Amino acid sequence: MAASASSTFSQSLLSRAIPNHPATHNSALPPHSLSFLAAASSSRRRSTRSRSSCAVVRAAAVETLQKTDTELVEKSVNTIRFLAIDAVEKANSGHPGLPMGCAPMGHILYDEVMRYNPKNPYWFNRDRFVLSAGHGCMLQYALLHLAGYDAVKEEDLKQFRQWGSQTPGHPENFETPGVEVTTGPLGQGIANAVGLALAEKHLAARYNKPDAEIVDHYTYVILGDGCQMEGIANEACSLAGHWGLGKLIAFYDDNHISIDGDTEIAFTENVDARFEALGWHVIWVKNGNTGYDEIRAAIEEAKAVKDKPTMIKVTTTIGFGSPNKANSYSVHGAALGSKEVEATRQNLGWPFEPFHVPEDVKKHWSRHTPEGAALEAEWNAKFAEYSKKYPEEAAELKSITTGELPSGWESALKSTPEERNLRFGVREHGMGAICNGIALHSPGFIPYCATFFVFTDYMRGAMRISALSEAGVIYVMTHDSIGLGEDGPTHQPIEHIASFRAMPNIFMFRPADGNETAGAYKIAVESRKTPSVLALSRQKLPQLPGTSIEGVAKGGYVISDNSTGNKPDVILAGTGSELEIAAKAGDELRKEGKAVRVVSLVSWELYDKQSDEYKESVFPAGVTARVSIEAASTFGWQKFVGDKGKAIGIDKFGASAPAGKIYKEYGLTVEAVIEAAKSFF
Amino acid sequence: MAASASSTFSQSLLSRAIPNHPATHNSALPPHSLSFLAAASSSRRRSTRSRSSCAVVRAAAVETLQKTDTELVEKSVNTIRFLAIDAVEKANSGHPGLPMGCAPMGHILYDEVMRYNPKNPYWFNRDRFVLSAGHGCMLQYALLHLAGYDAVKEEDLKQFRQWGSQTPGHPENFETPGVEVTTGPLGQGIANAVGLALAEKHLAARYNKPDAEIVDHYTYVILGDGCQMEGIANEACSLAGHWGLGKLIAFYDDNHISIDGDTEIAFTENVDARFEALGWHVIWVKNGNTGYDEIRAAIEEAKAVKDKPTMIKVTTTIGFGSPNKANSYSVHGAALGSKEVEATRQNLGWPFEPFHVPEDVKKHWSRHTPEGAALEAEWNAKFAEYSKKYPEEAAELKSITTGELPSGWESALKSTPEERNLRFGVREHGMGAICNGIALHSPGFIPYCATFFVFTDYMRGAMRISALSEAGVIYVMTHDSIGLGEDGPTHQPIEHIASFRAMPNIFMFRPADGNETAGAYKIAVESRKTPSVLALSRQKLPQLPGTSIEGVAKGGYVISDNSTGNKPDVILAGTGSELEIAAKAGDELRKEGKAVRVVSLVSWELYDKQSDEYKESVFPAGVTARVSIEAASTFGWQKFVGDKGKAIGIDKFGASAPAGKIYKEYGLTVEAVIEAAKSFF
Repeated sequence: MAASASSTFSQSLLSRAIPNHPATHNSALPPHSLSFLAAASSSRRRSTRSRSSCAVVRAAAVETLQKTDTELVEKSVNTIRFLAIDAVEKANSGHPGLPMGCAPMGHILYDEVMRYNPKNPYWFNRDRFVLSAGHGCMLQYALLHLAGYDAVKEEDLKQFRQWGSQTPGHPENFETPGVEVTTGPLGQGIANAVGLALAEKHLAARYNKPDAEIVDHYTYVILGDGCQMEGIANEACSLAGHWGLGKLIAFYDDNHISIDGDTEIAFTENVDARFEALGWHVIWVKNGNTGYDEIRAAIEEAKAVKDKPTMIKVTTTIGFGSPNKANSYSVHGAALGSKEVEATRQNLGWPFEPFHVPEDVKKHWSRHTPEGAALEAEWNAKFAEYSKKYPEEAAELKSITTGELPSGWESALKSTPEERNLRFGVREHGMGAICNGIALHSPGFIPYCATFFVFTDYMRGAMRISALSEAGVIYVMTHDSIGLGEDGPTHQPIEHIASFRAMPNIFMFRPADGNETAGAYKIAVESRKTPSVLALSRQKLPQLPGTSIEGVAKGGYVISDNSTGNKPDVILAGTGSELEIAAKAGDELRKEGKAVRVVSLVSWELYDKQSDEYKESVFPAGVTARVSIEAASTFGWQKFVGDKGKAIGIDKFGASAPAGKIYKEYGLTVEAVIEAAKSFF
Repeated sequence: MAASASSTFSQSLLSRAIPNHPATHNSALPPHSLSFLAAASSSRRRSTRSRSSCAVVRAAAVETLQKTDTELVEKSVNTIRFLAIDAVEKANSGHPGLPMGCAPMGHILYDEVMRYNPKNPYWFNRDRFVLSAGHGCMLQYALLHLAGYDAVKEEDLKQFRQWGSQTPGHPENFETPGVEVTTGPLGQGIANAVGLALAEKHLAARYNKPDAEIVDHYTYVILGDGCQMEGIANEACSLAGHWGLGKLIAFYDDNHISIDGDTEIAFTENVDARFEALGWHVIWVKNGNTGYDEIRAAIEEAKAVKDKPTMIKVTTTIGFGSPNKANSYSVHGAALGSKEVEATRQNLGWPFEPFHVPEDVKKHWSRHTPEGAALEAEWNAKFAEYSKKYPEEAAELKSITTGELPSGWESALKSTPEERNLRFGVREHGMGAICNGIALHSPGFIPYCATFFVFTDYMRGAMRISALSEAGVIYVMTHDSIGLGEDGPTHQPIEHIASFRAMPNIFMFRPADGNETAGAYKIAVESRKTPSVLALSRQKLPQLPGTSIEGVAKGGYVISDNSTGNKPDVILAGTGSELEIAAKAGDELRKEGKAVRVVSLVSWELYDKQSDEYKESVFPAGVTARVSIEAASTFGWQKFVGDKGKAIGIDKFGASAPAGKIYKEYGLTVEAVIEAAKSFF
């Protein structure tokens, strides 16, 4: 790489994506997927082959809305209710109210509407379902159980919220196959769903042909009042309206009760009108408790609206069926108690043992296993046909659905990706959560998103879910220190690096130059179950002697050393833009005859994974003369400089002035490093 | 205190405020102000005294909308534009576009509408102004300059964005008297304004009498497209509509340009309709560039609507007057350049030197100094009269406006505060920023707000502004660890304690019991320029021998020790719920004859402030056998345990199971502490 490749490279990726302003955000769509790294060449040939035979199979399966005998439907709905009641009761912990109220829409979705294969939860073209109101997860577990998913057997329901179970307290994609994303923190799920629907729309536009609609699924989501109040939901839903996501169908569980009591106390806005203002189609189902046909009709209407997402407001009774607790906050987040469980059994005419699924209900749902297999087989056949006609597109799509990196992808690290950006406006939290949805849609999607580093504060909730749910989103965060200068302390990160170093399962990179930026991207792209944060400078940086892509993979490594026998007089450590300062200080000290080692600590998490032997080779225990420099909080640096070392950093807020002036006033200088080093001699 | 006073005490404060659910939030209003600590006794006597004489003075001042000669108005507006242009040009950094577009509304607000005293920016009953689009701060600096505020003289304008100036790159209340809150991170300002307006409404309801409207000001705010996109703005504006804040008037600078270019690319929702859905009155000023009378009429209409906040959408041209850059993103965030400055001078007919204020403009604005003094004098006279009639209320109000804590307030630490809660629903980010507004409205307001600790991720942007802008908000954060149990890893904080320890100017408390909780509250209440986070457990905790309010004030202190000569065999350190584990391990080790010291590290920031001598008395350098335990990331603990010590904590995500089970599986046990300690013997 050339001398200024760092900024050139990072800016070649970023210059389009990151305008010079604090609060604008961009994200690369899927294309910052594998295919951004591969050379895509798309063929537009058309085929006249008929697909009618497929359509027949589909109709026989679950595409059309089936109307089953109402009595059996009610029995199924009550089964869902009691599975939730019983599991919460056994755990003596959980939220029975939502499952009891949303059982009807849940039944219709999983039994009549959605296309999925319970024996392969990862079948690519499945409809996606997200329970944004994640506390009501027993609804989803009951549905997965009835539908025949292996992850949620009766024993799993009995282990609800227990150590090591596949039925944790909120839905977690990494624990329970069949759960698409991780929800619970309110508002995340609806934003994830926007990402999932966007991913479908993007892939459909890229790969569908007039004779082969190979990508074709809906995204369904249930959200409650809590989700509706969260700002992230408004951000994401504004974008969904803007993007015209016609295959996103959201059910708003309008039960008028939140944890505090009636929603009147804090939530009196007109939600319908707000969603219309956001560009959504809005339908109101007034009787969500027993109005099965109303719910079915609403879904049909929603599907007919192709150019807008739809919000179906379903008015329900929280805890429906509980004679003394329904429609009150007491049923929201606590077990009913044995007395009220019994009263509810009486009220709904439910004579069965806990966790019992009546035979006719079981039999009814059992068809989803063969039908799901048929749906997948049908799609596989269609894909085989597609592969013959469109081999390049098929290979691309396959790499996206499997997540295999194309061979030789590293060589693309210096190229400019294709222009496939999404513009999020000023909606960081929505952006992060939408990227999670994209990442979790298909293993081959590698979304990256970008904003100023300081505004990770606005999307930290979503970033934590990336880390927890193993969504390998790449966060390219610029303007990473006081080096941004005049915009001042509101825009200058101080504690942010430390805050991500403390977060589990996320790589916090602070590359010093072009080599290290490329090295960080390499790890970030390869790490599909660990998100990465790349903190990049605003200021231009030179290429430093000694940095390397290979070094970055170790997290910390020696970039220069004139000592012998692993016994330098002093070790100078730095990251990012301050590694240059450490290197210059090293040069000066060497002129005075000192043996100086300079170490880059670009990613502490990667360094922590190295062997003790390697660590001893970088920071020998016998060398306690150590100085670190980083334009950020010194919090945590004692780990490297040790009891006797000195950490140079910033433990107060920044200031508004030209960058060079702030560096000088804050003591982040070559002279300061030299002075600290000399204190050891 | 009794044995279980900790949880009892903290829960007496919290049980009402914090329902047992992840995502519901409450905040104590002002009353968790001084008066929550004082015994309030309000008199409702009425007076028949007339206030007509005051009304005359007021009319003579600036209450009514004055219509000045249009030519002079335009000259004043162009003065504002060129002060912004010239300052940005000189700094070669900044955002000229907004000031050029918003100068007309800015002029009308500061010259014709707002009531303030430029020589006393802290006069209590002033109208508040918030520039939510903080990047356009030169608009506000120009207005403060013209209005006669001492903080912004010509020299200050020339020092825009320079080291040590009072005109930093974004508005900062702690730098520039006349600036109410700190803005720049988009969306914060509008939420602050909701807090300011709410504070006014609350005080008016509490202290106004039929014969004495002693609290009576408006809150004005200018926000742009960026603010509108942020979720925090929707959260706060939904609450403003819910609360019916009739004296909140927001100007939406509708210029169709954001940093990326036309807002069409990412922001196509119907903002007017959304605000109507949120319960706001909406007015559209179609010509914000020269429609002075339209703007004036809109303000009059807004004032006439008493039961709803008003959004005045003002369509403007960004960079108005610049012949080649107006209405484009290029004028948003960069200096015009000398050539375009010259072209703009030509275009607007502006023959003056940079930074020049024409004499007639200067003369026109000069009246605000005497008029402002008259307004304050009038109010002071009114308050004197009020004090005679309503001495108790007057004393209370005075304590709120001055911020003096009533004597003996500490004795109230065990009492239950009066019921004066605000319910924020599920809107953390809005809640934090609204609390900032309340805190910065009057020095005596001490808002506290509460949610689950993990959801600080949702409001971190606002919490950072609390710290930066010296707003002493108290964040009472519960469910502070894996100890919350079944709700699982989405709800279990791991890295949060470390993330706040790394943040400047915020106290991160993790109290272990009732004594420490009281001690933390004491510091938090006293610290009016530093916000506090109190991380409290969900689980019940016993009162521990040796803890104390006085100990908390030192941040770290010895709670028990059986050593002599400051030479324990081992030091065990802990915080919060794990201090009990450390104490029990200490008891066991002492039974085996060891000399053990147990240290509480309840607030690292306070400990850092202690003398080296004190620190040596707690952690003698000679004792390197040290073990820490905290149910959180170990990041940063090496500072206390040193190179040879051991930190027990959690460096991965949590799990869904009963709390005790998780503690055991994660190795947070008495046995683990004993084993670690024994490794030193």
